[in-house]
Amino acid sequence: MTDFAATKAMFDLPDGVIYLDGNSLGPLPRAARRRVDEMIAREWGEMLITGWNKAGWMAMPMRLGERIGRLIGAEPGHTVLGDTLSIKVYQALASALEMVPGRRVVLSDSGNFPTDLYMAQGLLESLGRGHELRVVAPGDVAASITEEVAVVMLTEVDYATGRKHDMAALTARARAVGALTVWDLAHSAGALPVDVSGAGADFAVGCTYKYLNGGPGAPAFIYVAPRHADRVRPALSGWLGHEAPFAFDPDYRPGAGIERMRVGTPPVLQMTALAAALDVWDMADMADVRAKSAELTEMFMAGVAADCRDLHIVTPRRPEARGSQVSLRFEHGYAAMQALIAHGVIGDFRAPDIMRFGFTPLYIGESEVQGALTILREVIAGRLWDRPEFKVRSAVT
Amino acid sequence: MTDFAATKAMFDLPDGVIYLDGNSLGPLPRAARRRVDEMIAREWGEMLITGWNKAGWMAMPMRLGERIGRLIGAEPGHTVLGDTLSIKVYQALASALEMVPGRRVVLSDSGNFPTDLYMAQGLLESLGRGHELRVVAPGDVAASITEEVAVVMLTEVDYATGRKHDMAALTARARAVGALTVWDLAHSAGALPVDVSGAGADFAVGCTYKYLNGGPGAPAFIYVAPRHADRVRPALSGWLGHEAPFAFDPDYRPGAGIERMRVGTPPVLQMTALAAALDVWDMADMADVRAKSAELTEMFMAGVAADCRDLHIVTPRRPEARGSQVSLRFEHGYAAMQALIAHGVIGDFRAPDIMRFGFTPLYIGESEVQGALTILREVIAGRLWDRPEFKVRSAVT
Repeated sequence: MTDFAATKAMFDLPDGVIYLDGNSLGPLPRAARRRVDEMIAREWGEMLITGWNKAGWMAMPMRLGERIGRLIGAEPGHTVLGDTLSIKVYQALASALEMVPGRRVVLSDSGNFPTDLYMAQGLLESLGRGHELRVVAPGDVAASITEEVAVVMLTEVDYATGRKHDMAALTARARAVGALTVWDLAHSAGALPVDVSGAGADFAVGCTYKYLNGGPGAPAFIYVAPRHADRVRPALSGWLGHEAPFAFDPDYRPGAGIERMRVGTPPVLQMTALAAALDVWDMADMADVRAKSAELTEMFMAGVAADCRDLHIVTPRRPEARGSQVSLRFEHGYAAMQALIAHGVIGDFRAPDIMRFGFTPLYIGESEVQGALTILREVIAGRLWDRPEFKVRSAVT
Repeated sequence: MTDFAATKAMFDLPDGVIYLDGNSLGPLPRAARRRVDEMIAREWGEMLITGWNKAGWMAMPMRLGERIGRLIGAEPGHTVLGDTLSIKVYQALASALEMVPGRRVVLSDSGNFPTDLYMAQGLLESLGRGHELRVVAPGDVAASITEEVAVVMLTEVDYATGRKHDMAALTARARAVGALTVWDLAHSAGALPVDVSGAGADFAVGCTYKYLNGGPGAPAFIYVAPRHADRVRPALSGWLGHEAPFAFDPDYRPGAGIERMRVGTPPVLQMTALAAALDVWDMADMADVRAKSAELTEMFMAGVAADCRDLHIVTPRRPEARGSQVSLRFEHGYAAMQALIAHGVIGDFRAPDIMRFGFTPLYIGESEVQGALTILREVIAGRLWDRPEFKVRSAVT
């Protein structure tokens, strides 16, 4: 049984704040500060260039990828860290499309995170071979997986609503018609049990700064199914994915398996913070995290339903149909979220009218949920969202 | 006049080491350690998600890009940070190729860094439109810039030999035949005066962990000439290059100018270290750095020529024809470099037989050059490279 008091003690959380935005940026694991400082002083400062070998920097993308692979049900040795999630979406989609050369449709849904759609649009326009990015409503995805489809590209948990796709069922459907799948696990990894291997996913990508708590701008990860790993062409074919990076051959030859999906020099400071963050996961059982998340999200939704009738709950009430967040639609959502933040409850706002709250059992429990509900009731009942100071939009929200 | 004693004092250099590998990984700027620690504790730890606005994280790619732009002669507002150099090479080349749709040749040379060639190979294969990557000898580049050529893609200073191209002349030649240029400044930025604007370069990219001292895995940068900035299609079209990233539109619309070359969430820890590293450059005049670099490299080559006849100097002796490194060809180069490192002189080795030494006036002076020569003489004259302990190759060199 996961000891959530112990995991909470591993984070440095500011006093007087209820942090319900770990689905956007996880808080600071206490050990990360010390570990990064030691890496800077003892490794960069003292080992200098030799740190790539001596301190194991060069091996970190595979070593940390392995630890993330465990959290998403990947076969050992088939997950690697690198780049940003946008880049990894591009790489996975470009690689996948080449494996289904006769088809021209990339299927996605309107619940996908915009950057996934943007990267796909950019790729398809570059290719210039008449591919179509077909974006359907989330509920229409299953029926839209036809033999026209080359690649099904989906985010398992909708960033805006928290609705969760059935990864196993959709992947099976895709395989049945000969399409490949690219799953974005941005709101799944660290939020709920994922089983890329069991589901038969072809490619999966995700980020590490949300539920995995790797810090702002922590690198992304990519998984390629073992059946493809040694035959996929990485599209973004960089020197660290080369069979022998330090041979400095003029011609690219892909490395073995997932190593070929590496591209350029990895960000050692960010990876060091992430390594500390992953230590927390060594103490957690994902089934416990999921069970607790279901309780906390239900508790929050029940409170909202009872006392905040103006807020429309857009997240599914059936626990198996949602991730680890609750989204509320409210016309004055932006100002209401600013009022909440001013009163110490940090969630976020997604245009045009969604208030988002992430529930992360590693450091959020029932008392935080009740505390957040109390303040939410005050903000809504007191119409605090109507105060002018909460209506000023900042450039970045 | 640049005070090199003052700039040297801004670095934390280990005792007993002569560090001649700042062309591969710059050493630790003293302020970086404190600045990253404060960022982790005060920004990530206390501001949490609000750090993107409050601490200015989201603006860092443009703000730091501006500071780098000053060092490479870019027009203000046309340089931005992000991703790795491999990714930025890909993005620049993909964008450039679309602007010259009728031509099918990408011209590069055998002195280009392999990852540039690999990324180009990957891109051209993805495009599948019959583009040819034509790789000629460095001395044949000028004559090879013909009207067949769509894009000339070169690294200004050869990573292996230190030979420097004439950027202005080659760019002019490319423009004269209607070809575009993509310049890789990995071994130029912070090493010598660069004038992308004066040269008329179309695209330039570079990394920040070599002469700019941003730390292992620090992000890359990209410059796009103002005449192209508002019409280029970024190819890697991510959400942070969108006109309105937080509108969460399903369709990509490029942002203004260089902002569109941004892709995903930027690495805040790495950028914070880089910001501290760039403070050193506020105290340095690039003309002084270049003059001192020419002296130091000449002093080193003269010493080698006089006393180490077995070592073949492959770096040009004319100062205007080289960057800020000296490369020596030696059959036993790998073992000799290991012996040097064991005796406190850190350079590096590049297959098959190149010993590289970087000379970085910000923290390397004449006494270090003389010290390195003394030890190099001992290693060569004493045949220390013949000892078995120096012959064992590590996986990463």
